[in-house]
Amino acid sequence: MLRVEIISIGDELLIGHTVNTNAAWMGEQLFKSGIQVSWISDVGDEAGAIRTALERAEERAEVVLVTGGLGPTHDDITREVVCDYFATGLRLDHDLLLEIERLFSRRGIPMARINENQAMVPGGARLITNHHGTAPGYVFERGNRRFYFMPGVPFEMKAMMTGVILPELALLKSDQVILHQMLSTIGIAESALFEKIGDIQAIEALAHVAFLPAPSGIRIRLTVYDHDDARARERLRQATALIRQNIEPYVYADRDIPLEEALAECLVRAQKSIAVAESCTGGLIAHKFTNIPGSSRFFERGVVAYSNAAKQEILGVAEALIAEHGAVSAAVAQAMAQGIRRIARSDFGLATTGIAGPDGGSAEKPVGLVYVACADARRCVVHERHLFANERLVNKERFAYAALNLLRKQMQDLVD
Amino acid sequence: MLRVEIISIGDELLIGHTVNTNAAWMGEQLFKSGIQVSWISDVGDEAGAIRTALERAEERAEVVLVTGGLGPTHDDITREVVCDYFATGLRLDHDLLLEIERLFSRRGIPMARINENQAMVPGGARLITNHHGTAPGYVFERGNRRFYFMPGVPFEMKAMMTGVILPELALLKSDQVILHQMLSTIGIAESALFEKIGDIQAIEALAHVAFLPAPSGIRIRLTVYDHDDARARERLRQATALIRQNIEPYVYADRDIPLEEALAECLVRAQKSIAVAESCTGGLIAHKFTNIPGSSRFFERGVVAYSNAAKQEILGVAEALIAEHGAVSAAVAQAMAQGIRRIARSDFGLATTGIAGPDGGSAEKPVGLVYVACADARRCVVHERHLFANERLVNKERFAYAALNLLRKQMQDLVD
Repeated sequence: MLRVEIISIGDELLIGHTVNTNAAWMGEQLFKSGIQVSWISDVGDEAGAIRTALERAEERAEVVLVTGGLGPTHDDITREVVCDYFATGLRLDHDLLLEIERLFSRRGIPMARINENQAMVPGGARLITNHHGTAPGYVFERGNRRFYFMPGVPFEMKAMMTGVILPELALLKSDQVILHQMLSTIGIAESALFEKIGDIQAIEALAHVAFLPAPSGIRIRLTVYDHDDARARERLRQATALIRQNIEPYVYADRDIPLEEALAECLVRAQKSIAVAESCTGGLIAHKFTNIPGSSRFFERGVVAYSNAAKQEILGVAEALIAEHGAVSAAVAQAMAQGIRRIARSDFGLATTGIAGPDGGSAEKPVGLVYVACADARRCVVHERHLFANERLVNKERFAYAALNLLRKQMQDLVD
Repeated sequence: MLRVEIISIGDELLIGHTVNTNAAWMGEQLFKSGIQVSWISDVGDEAGAIRTALERAEERAEVVLVTGGLGPTHDDITREVVCDYFATGLRLDHDLLLEIERLFSRRGIPMARINENQAMVPGGARLITNHHGTAPGYVFERGNRRFYFMPGVPFEMKAMMTGVILPELALLKSDQVILHQMLSTIGIAESALFEKIGDIQAIEALAHVAFLPAPSGIRIRLTVYDHDDARARERLRQATALIRQNIEPYVYADRDIPLEEALAECLVRAQKSIAVAESCTGGLIAHKFTNIPGSSRFFERGVVAYSNAAKQEILGVAEALIAEHGAVSAAVAQAMAQGIRRIARSDFGLATTGIAGPDGGSAEKPVGLVYVACADARRCVVHERHLFANERLVNKERFAYAALNLLRKQMQDLVD
């Protein structure tokens, strides 16, 4: 099996200023290509640490993917360490200089002097063109080891990975088959899911099973390693069937996708539209839906009815209803769902009202309480009450997925 | 200086299923306590790799913080590796078993059998109570090395860090003074910012300077290492003043906070309210504002006017205006800002309309085009046109911050 490691360089990773999404994205793309990353190291912009990380990775892995520290400012030192590590010097690449000048003139902005320095590259490196920025990537080979150096700017790195590196690695990987199957679940805790599945040993004889908490619920990942493709497929099929038979009501997709994407696919397929009225989720459900390309095909509008005035004026929730039950109540959630469906003339109306915290809770209505409601054309509006107990942002996420799960159940007969 | 490393355990980190936000959060909290993490390693749920990671960290660091692999399911193996690494066995902790049973009865859900197993802990370990879950933390000491093992579930880990580990590490750290100062900027690119700052050598003689891209703009971090507290403060003050004198218009905070938080503080201080009308940002601005605790003090409502019908019906944008200029236009952005401010009776109205992509662009109005507008009581509504060229989610972020930056400029005279 091809051993691949990632080294992410940058002080900002160590002090938590930046979350290392680059390594996660690279790991995911490699995994989809049948290559599993075995180690990720984050080190600072410090020559000794970068050097040690390169040495350790070179001991263990055949391919080392390095990002970060190639920018134009003085605190980026990866290029110098690379020259030292591979015992080479810098040379001016004239083509690259022209390319950088062209990049700036296309954008219509004057080129800062320090960008000229970006055309100085380590001797002996094969270059990877950067179509989105000034710092090129470098490739070094030594023995049977290969090193790729990329900028840390996510879309520059991604373009190099997709355009050059992933295709090259696909040629290197061994003939072992790695197959995987994801099941996305919602509405059940990890330990309960594990018990429902039953005889894990029988399934593990076929495929490796892992439980992965995600914002919208638990994902189950099945992985089969085999040298025979047909046998690998059959093992994965059987293991998946064994698992699904006991947990089917909680499975919303046989891929790793967030619930909103699965719902969007259903809505588009059934040519149905949705509108949302959000109080405590504050726009998060609308944001999730509109993150999906082409969301205008199913998402009609949203209202973030944070104040009572907004609930009354836009959604037509009766003032007396709020006075009687309080803004955080089943009655108000239902009225909001009906209100947004009516004004948007959409097929579904989804609503949330609750207390995200940290303040605003009471003994009767504590922080973490949410009412979600869903209105459709056929029957009365349905609602659910949930009590979560987390910090504000986690509560918002939980609230949003409770609402989306209610929509899922309401839509169930559209699915097939 | 106290050397601290982090080891994050879990296959999900290597295959990109989970982004390692735990390590980032820990790094940030430690940095705020004057402790700088020097290395982060992500390894899979595999005994050999976990063992190697522990060995490497023990060679280099005095404190090793480990998260992950302590869950109840069979794929969590950290506890076994810990027993092997510290040459100890498992023992049943009776107090812990009672605690776990109490946890489940408080939640009113039956306890799955596998949770009993969570009361088996490595002998010789000091335990850290888990107030939010079933897996306790462990502390091992060997020579002058200290190891902390925590669950990977973010809020369980965070409670252990905040309640126990950070206070313990504060006692361990050396007497070297590390001071830092962040400057948050918006509306200027990294290379342009670097050039504007001027003589970086003069500043570096006082403090180490780093440039950190964040979603809302470039952050500048200044760090001083010194053995004298008063001298460290003076060096930091001088360096900060030298930098600020040339880039003041772009600095919106002297802390590392997102722009929406800085704006929220201004709004609350000035007792002003805001409402937002979002087309292409699809609820993201409302979501950002409502992520802030107590947002009801300044955020009145939001409308995600995704369809033209919603723009006309809720915000009162004239049909003729959309027909004449198109939905993505300065005129419509202005009408949306005025409309939302009028119906919400808020002090400010902020609006976005644009094309997030990947589809829907044209030669005249390409993907990445956005118009942002801001209405207030004093004058006509102001607007800006921006052209970004990124993928959908990045465009939504950029659009949202373009709008928030317009609000910042509009609010400037409220700031002081």
